[in-house]
Amino acid sequence: MDPALLDAADLLRPFRDRFVLPQGTIYLDGNSLGCLPKATAPKITELVNVDWGQNLIGSWNVAGWVDAPQRVGDKIARLVGAEEGEVVACDSTSVNVFKALCAALSANPGRSTILSERGNFPTDVYMMQGLEALTGRRVSARLVDGETVLDAIDDDTAVVLLTQVHYRTGRVRDMVATTAAAQARGALVIWDLSHSAGAIPADLSGANADFAVGCGYKFLNGGPGAPGYIFAARRHQDTAMPALSGWFGHARPFDFDDAYRPAPGIARFLVGTPPIIGLAALEVGVDLMREADMAQVRSKSVAMGELFARRMAPLCERHGFMLASPADPAERGSQISYAHPEAYPIVQALIARGVVGDFRAPDVLRFGLTPLYTSFGEIAAAVDTIAAVMDEGAWDRPEFKVRAAVT
Amino acid sequence: MDPALLDAADLLRPFRDRFVLPQGTIYLDGNSLGCLPKATAPKITELVNVDWGQNLIGSWNVAGWVDAPQRVGDKIARLVGAEEGEVVACDSTSVNVFKALCAALSANPGRSTILSERGNFPTDVYMMQGLEALTGRRVSARLVDGETVLDAIDDDTAVVLLTQVHYRTGRVRDMVATTAAAQARGALVIWDLSHSAGAIPADLSGANADFAVGCGYKFLNGGPGAPGYIFAARRHQDTAMPALSGWFGHARPFDFDDAYRPAPGIARFLVGTPPIIGLAALEVGVDLMREADMAQVRSKSVAMGELFARRMAPLCERHGFMLASPADPAERGSQISYAHPEAYPIVQALIARGVVGDFRAPDVLRFGLTPLYTSFGEIAAAVDTIAAVMDEGAWDRPEFKVRAAVT
Repeated sequence: MDPALLDAADLLRPFRDRFVLPQGTIYLDGNSLGCLPKATAPKITELVNVDWGQNLIGSWNVAGWVDAPQRVGDKIARLVGAEEGEVVACDSTSVNVFKALCAALSANPGRSTILSERGNFPTDVYMMQGLEALTGRRVSARLVDGETVLDAIDDDTAVVLLTQVHYRTGRVRDMVATTAAAQARGALVIWDLSHSAGAIPADLSGANADFAVGCGYKFLNGGPGAPGYIFAARRHQDTAMPALSGWFGHARPFDFDDAYRPAPGIARFLVGTPPIIGLAALEVGVDLMREADMAQVRSKSVAMGELFARRMAPLCERHGFMLASPADPAERGSQISYAHPEAYPIVQALIARGVVGDFRAPDVLRFGLTPLYTSFGEIAAAVDTIAAVMDEGAWDRPEFKVRAAVT
Repeated sequence: MDPALLDAADLLRPFRDRFVLPQGTIYLDGNSLGCLPKATAPKITELVNVDWGQNLIGSWNVAGWVDAPQRVGDKIARLVGAEEGEVVACDSTSVNVFKALCAALSANPGRSTILSERGNFPTDVYMMQGLEALTGRRVSARLVDGETVLDAIDDDTAVVLLTQVHYRTGRVRDMVATTAAAQARGALVIWDLSHSAGAIPADLSGANADFAVGCGYKFLNGGPGAPGYIFAARRHQDTAMPALSGWFGHARPFDFDDAYRPAPGIARFLVGTPPIIGLAALEVGVDLMREADMAQVRSKSVAMGELFARRMAPLCERHGFMLASPADPAERGSQISYAHPEAYPIVQALIARGVVGDFRAPDVLRFGLTPLYTSFGEIAAAVDTIAAVMDEGAWDRPEFKVRAAVT
């Protein structure tokens, strides 16, 4: 596995030129914040100066602002195996989790437990807990160990909230088998695709998924705090109620009626006025991702993960790293994680040398693999830098141990 | 009231040069979407190219992204008479209404009715109705006529959701007297400041307000779909629960705990990852507004409204316009509205001649008065254009009667 040969054979290589990539940095954190597509700044500048600055309120109709959540949603739908009219881009992922939970509860009446796994991405769990508290525990939020989640489904389980690719370990769940097993027990399933879309194939229709949510700022390269998205299978759209019933989810928002009447279709999952600038940046990232062949993306991601793991193996022996991701690349998303007791200062020392991964509490170093802009040569160089930092003990400095607000 | 003399004496006149104002347009819709500050595009370009493009994930700490909701919130706080640490900028206004409702219910236990007025801005009412449905009517959403809302407060009324400046008529409610009267009956008050902040003085602390929400894209000039904001009086912050308990509202988000622990202070009103690009655009608008003296803003707004009304008086007689705003400028926000059976095509005909107001169902022409960038000369010219459109019957054309998606 010579990195230079792998790069020479890389079919996705041309995509690298479509991104702004800072000099002197090997960026392995695209699973936290994706890099800037070169097309984004010009698009935003035009939107701000022309659509906003010159055409002002008229742009809601003329520049397509009013349809932006649906238009971007339809584009995302194609990346996650959904159909047109099943996805809208809007709100934060967290808010979309809440809407999906409420919608699933309304679509599965008579059951009142929402189930997830311990150690799921925190905001998913927190939104469950907030809903439980709001309803005076008429809705129960239940967490069990990840391996037992299907067995824990009982007659009261309305919905299971699961993540396709785990944020810390990168472990992949089988969406098809898991959805079928949960539905066989009478539960609906919400999939969190935050670490999936643009990273590994996801097939919501093929899995017969009920609802899904995801994040715009990771592998979709939509920019910091980009809008998230929400999927509702067409069969649920006319009955499910997302509870956050804002005016953009009304059947006729500009009638200014006193009574909420949900829009038909996916539009009822909209809430407030759409975040137009954020949606424009997200659309550029999504458009770029749609140009890539997802099979090639997955294939390169697996190859990068294998190169990383193979080169890390001696460091595991020499410096006590433990692979925190599944060893089988088929069970791993587009990241690779290692546990180490000194994970935090090691990550800081790597950043100081231009290798940007991130730390995830309590003890994980996490490296995102982004096939559109990461080269095999960078993967090899990143592991060389880890080796150097460890062999030199360069991480063991007080300034690397001060925790920042965001890790 | 010679417009030229009024313009010559206008102390706010220099602000006009700080905005991009399209040639040939008299823009009287800043209460729907504020104009573009000249400083916005450069700020966004730098954020995108440098903070995102070059510094990537490091900008969460180094560029102050993580504090943006609080920083912008503190700046908005000064415009609405709140204190530092009582406002955060985040989410849409609609989502913030939901959080404020849930927070108020949690801060006023034993009462379960949320009360508002018929004809309030629809999304406020719709969010109430969504919460009612979600809780299986354990929370009641009740609407009464605006004049009777205080009398309608009973022993079960937990919270009253009111708007300081009515979106359609511009009618101003007395925040001090209304808040005191509601609180005397045991209810809390949420103020919607969407048409207030940056337009008329608001004094949340002076009124002893409990909660408030508002919009970033109107008089704050934050751009299309800008983040909204939410205020919680300090006395409620340690007990009120906004229900949408996302990871950015957690006491220690980057501990990735399984249990939600609300952050102390206003931070618990945050939900998902903040929309960084939208917040940056909003911050420019807020910074610009903070340079203005709010007494001067109000004084110019009143003078513009009086000029408009005086010049419209003959048209009311001649063409059947009815003033839909209070006649007393002290009771009117920074807009003036007229009812007319042909309001929709008249608004379209005006837009075709470069005078941009908007239509509000069922029969209102609404003209926003934005002291920072509208001149008295424009007000006079706008009314002259209305006169011409009516005298010529220019509105009576089929193309002006086709309803657009957004009005």
